[in-house]
Amino acid sequence: MADTDGIDVLVHEVGPRDGLQATQVLMPTDAKLEWITALRDSGLQKIQVGSFVPPKLLPQMADSADVTKSAKELGGFKVSVLVPNLKGAELALAAGADELNFVMSASEEHNLKNVRKTHEQSIEDFTRIIELKRSNDDFRDVTISGGLSTCFGCTIAGPIAEEIVFELTRAYVEAGADRIGIADTVGYGNPVQVKRIFSEVLDIADGINVGAHFHDTRGLGLANAFAAFEVGVRELDGCLGGLGGCPYAPGATGNVVTEDLVFMLESMGLQTGINLDRLMEARAVMEKHLGGEPTHGAYAKAGAPKGFPSAGLAA
Amino acid sequence: MADTDGIDVLVHEVGPRDGLQATQVLMPTDAKLEWITALRDSGLQKIQVGSFVPPKLLPQMADSADVTKSAKELGGFKVSVLVPNLKGAELALAAGADELNFVMSASEEHNLKNVRKTHEQSIEDFTRIIELKRSNDDFRDVTISGGLSTCFGCTIAGPIAEEIVFELTRAYVEAGADRIGIADTVGYGNPVQVKRIFSEVLDIADGINVGAHFHDTRGLGLANAFAAFEVGVRELDGCLGGLGGCPYAPGATGNVVTEDLVFMLESMGLQTGINLDRLMEARAVMEKHLGGEPTHGAYAKAGAPKGFPSAGLAA
Repeated sequence: MADTDGIDVLVHEVGPRDGLQATQVLMPTDAKLEWITALRDSGLQKIQVGSFVPPKLLPQMADSADVTKSAKELGGFKVSVLVPNLKGAELALAAGADELNFVMSASEEHNLKNVRKTHEQSIEDFTRIIELKRSNDDFRDVTISGGLSTCFGCTIAGPIAEEIVFELTRAYVEAGADRIGIADTVGYGNPVQVKRIFSEVLDIADGINVGAHFHDTRGLGLANAFAAFEVGVRELDGCLGGLGGCPYAPGATGNVVTEDLVFMLESMGLQTGINLDRLMEARAVMEKHLGGEPTHGAYAKAGAPKGFPSAGLAA
Repeated sequence: MADTDGIDVLVHEVGPRDGLQATQVLMPTDAKLEWITALRDSGLQKIQVGSFVPPKLLPQMADSADVTKSAKELGGFKVSVLVPNLKGAELALAAGADELNFVMSASEEHNLKNVRKTHEQSIEDFTRIIELKRSNDDFRDVTISGGLSTCFGCTIAGPIAEEIVFELTRAYVEAGADRIGIADTVGYGNPVQVKRIFSEVLDIADGINVGAHFHDTRGLGLANAFAAFEVGVRELDGCLGGLGGCPYAPGATGNVVTEDLVFMLESMGLQTGINLDRLMEARAVMEKHLGGEPTHGAYAKAGAPKGFPSAGLAA
């Protein structure tokens, strides 16, 4: 397992899942593992390696069980996966995943479209996953994360009432979640909203880890990440090269760019445990296998400031 | 003069100056004025239209006196210009500029290279500009802004001691500055540093307006703008389309993208007085005259969220 002692913020790399599922390319299993190895070698302590959705829906994720097993053998980091339902959770646990990220949309319209369930049905499913975990002592150390997407607005429903986010967070906590993941799936959030929502979610979570997942669709990804950090969030998702663009916004950037996020945190004087030079090497490995898929990111173009890292820069 | 009543944050568009001086294209005077008119029509209340530097150094700015005079005739916004010295200030005042942004680098090495003056010599020059303003009642309403570049680090000197920034701010205030402008010229700053530096500068300025100028070179432009807002800064620079890239970082983004900044502020529930649709029209006018020069920005690619602007989004 990853050693997360001594780090101030845990950066959760979701590129091999959220990034790849938005690309046209079908990356072979070996290529994914080469990329994941390079990510681990940069110091990332948690990497989302796949998604246990039906292969016919997301052929890019069809090898998720194999990738998960091999990632576990690599060692040195927490192997995180996405699961949309109980069936996916069974497969993920069988493959040996360390963290299961269950996904439900705060927008019920989007949830019905995405996983064909009402909120109530999704929470029932989540409860069964918690029961499954508790039924077998082998799964004792597995983190079951209750994820909420479209918390800051939805391309179908538009604005989302914050009270729905808080109600569903409460439902997750009551069901026994080990972690809460709050996502701005389509890049609608702003820093003031981020501070307000995460302050309340952290209160409701009452000590359970809360992660934040932002997209940079309208350029506010890092501003939102900073805002979440300011109110106490200590786990942030990113995608190397900003993969994960939305099919409804051609050319738009995707997830928060991991290397820009790491640069921001490190330049703020925080420890992420991640080496930016090695992260750039992982980016090169990724690009080699992406078949020309566009990547994003400012740090990759501009490089480090003169004298960075340096106490003088931050002091 | 622009009516800035009822706005929460003043966005200062610096594209026709900071943006253009970084481009290869020599934009004709008429094209600049068409662009400036479109900027005004979007609701921008202050636009930096030129720079009174020697024309042989910056041929893109050689028509700054004409542009300033015509911009004044357009009306409806505050006409801001850059001046590097007393001579430039004389020309800018003669042309009728409403705001003179004097520039000095916090990095003395950079200042010597840029304007061939020590800090002491630059402050002497600034003092003479203040005296010039006070010598003629026609200039009573002109804002003389003391600008400090490279406050967050310098490509030549590396890290910059914050005490230098504070000392030079004090010197500007003592000399009689009407405004202080603090700039992260090369995109080295981070939000924690931004909050620390601007908190102190606002204290020293003691009621004098303080503006913030960020570059997005490493992706932190909007995070830094949000951080500055949080500690009380109410005037933020931007460049439409993120013009103003640094010649030392090929392909890197330039200034904070005005339209992304306006989207952030408006989505935070703040009034900027700017209409985003019309700002996109101004972007189209600018691009028409840029001769293929690259532009940046996320909002331009992704558009507005569903239901925006909407009280529901922020509430």
